[in-house]
Amino acid sequence: MTTTIKDLGEIELLNRLKRFMRYGQIDDDIAEINISNKSLLINTDLLVEKIHFSEEISNAKDIGWKCITTNISDLICSGSKNILSFNVGLVLPPNTPWKWVENLYEGMWEAMQEFGGEIIGGDCSCGELKMISITAIGEMNPPRLHRGNALPGDYIVSTGIHGLSRLGLALLTSEKLPGEVQISPQLITRAINSHKRPYPAIEALNALIECKPKSTSWRAAGTDSSDGLVESIRGICHSSNCQAVLSKNSLLKDPDWPEGSTWDDWVLYGGEDYELILSLPKKWAEALSKKLKTAKIIGFMKEGKPNIFWDNLEEINFEQSNIFKHF
Amino acid sequence: MTTTIKDLGEIELLNRLKRFMRYGQIDDDIAEINISNKSLLINTDLLVEKIHFSEEISNAKDIGWKCITTNISDLICSGSKNILSFNVGLVLPPNTPWKWVENLYEGMWEAMQEFGGEIIGGDCSCGELKMISITAIGEMNPPRLHRGNALPGDYIVSTGIHGLSRLGLALLTSEKLPGEVQISPQLITRAINSHKRPYPAIEALNALIECKPKSTSWRAAGTDSSDGLVESIRGICHSSNCQAVLSKNSLLKDPDWPEGSTWDDWVLYGGEDYELILSLPKKWAEALSKKLKTAKIIGFMKEGKPNIFWDNLEEINFEQSNIFKHF
Repeated sequence: MTTTIKDLGEIELLNRLKRFMRYGQIDDDIAEINISNKSLLINTDLLVEKIHFSEEISNAKDIGWKCITTNISDLICSGSKNILSFNVGLVLPPNTPWKWVENLYEGMWEAMQEFGGEIIGGDCSCGELKMISITAIGEMNPPRLHRGNALPGDYIVSTGIHGLSRLGLALLTSEKLPGEVQISPQLITRAINSHKRPYPAIEALNALIECKPKSTSWRAAGTDSSDGLVESIRGICHSSNCQAVLSKNSLLKDPDWPEGSTWDDWVLYGGEDYELILSLPKKWAEALSKKLKTAKIIGFMKEGKPNIFWDNLEEINFEQSNIFKHF
Repeated sequence: MTTTIKDLGEIELLNRLKRFMRYGQIDDDIAEINISNKSLLINTDLLVEKIHFSEEISNAKDIGWKCITTNISDLICSGSKNILSFNVGLVLPPNTPWKWVENLYEGMWEAMQEFGGEIIGGDCSCGELKMISITAIGEMNPPRLHRGNALPGDYIVSTGIHGLSRLGLALLTSEKLPGEVQISPQLITRAINSHKRPYPAIEALNALIECKPKSTSWRAAGTDSSDGLVESIRGICHSSNCQAVLSKNSLLKDPDWPEGSTWDDWVLYGGEDYELILSLPKKWAEALSKKLKTAKIIGFMKEGKPNIFWDNLEEINFEQSNIFKHF
């Protein structure tokens, strides 16, 4: 029988492609090249119509904003604040209105005004579905955050709340809300905004850099929570070969967030949040949670086979994790 | 009425997108960033199934080779010989056999063994059609070839023959040959090989660098002939704001190439050839055509509204140019 990539799943697919790539490149989303003692971080993100965006719930400007900011988030969660450039590859059906393309670029432009960088090149082609491929380049300065940099004894820090983008998606697609609860208009606004206009954690990265205690090195593990909170921690555990213990009472939620197990699941597995998830030496973690109001220590790393537990020793369920749904 | 991108065509679409991009970026396919006094060239190419490749005529290994080498050709024709890295964005239908993906990467690998560079990162996603987006990075050293660098008085040099890839496509798709002529088995092999395994003009770039007369500066205009011989010259004329005059008797053809107007058209407009088309100071052009056996001076540049003429003053027909067929 022929093995398809659906049979393999994304993780095994990437695993099998390792031998074609530079050693150690697969653990992080981001690539790096060194030139004249400077390091550049390079990130490619694909957005495919019907998979990553749909015109029913997002207009072209929002899609433009999102495809630049998701890329910037990957650079930021690797430690780069200095965004240099974007190459944009665009596949469009021939009947695409010019206005749609113009709005897409205006959304990209707005994001670049906010976070830096400029479009320096790209390619375009016709195709049956819209597809946007963006390669962003940023300059690297310490701290160079890797998924594989965590050590047992680190504290795990989330720089903000999770679940809003998942709720926003539910609201935009008129999905029934869990428990059919009523939610506040403020929460509705915050959720829709989080989904349509994600805002990369540049302030959190600045705070992380500013608050580093002199007594600790720049060693820090990090990623963004674009694939969901649990998935981002799972990635750090796997790449760093250690275990995470999360405190059930420390999870950050919106002040108006309803109670209930599905609501909790949206916080844990929702995805498309763009907070930094960090594994830091204790002192640095404490300094960050003091300096950055939105940040909180949510657990710690310990030795052991890569896995995540609650502090009551319950194992965390990965079935809902986004990573298993890409194919 | 809504203006679609099909109404605009590729040139007008790119024109309208200019205002979102760094100044001067649109004339060349390639982007450039400067870091610590080094320049990097960055190129993105999209390959979409049914548009740029089809599994009926190319296997996955050939497609892998081609998507790396077309990118390398863009770097080489901008002056970069030092290929650093590739980011690969891959959209695949879930039922794609793993073997196909493996063969694709093996083809890419073979090309990197030949020309340098390594895959350093990327992204993958499911989607209804296969799509490959590659961003290549090369280090820039003189000469920095731009389409816009030509001056009246330059000679136009082609570093090799044209039309083979177009013939290869015809043979692979069982298209009737113009005039239903018989062609030699050697020509058949060369044509199919040109189409399936294009070979970027690295030797020509080396020769260009080595033969530069001391008395001339590094100023040179260049592009590759991936969109066809005439289209590459048209691009140089437009970006440099001058006219080209081509010598009808100097066009390079395969020694076994048949006679006939359609056969001539394939040489002029065929596309997917990867020779360098250069506009050089006379002395440099003469030195190159002496040093590189395959190269020939095929015309000259003069002042005037961007256009191309034969040396008998006949205007060249653009209708057949590939550039108008992308949407």
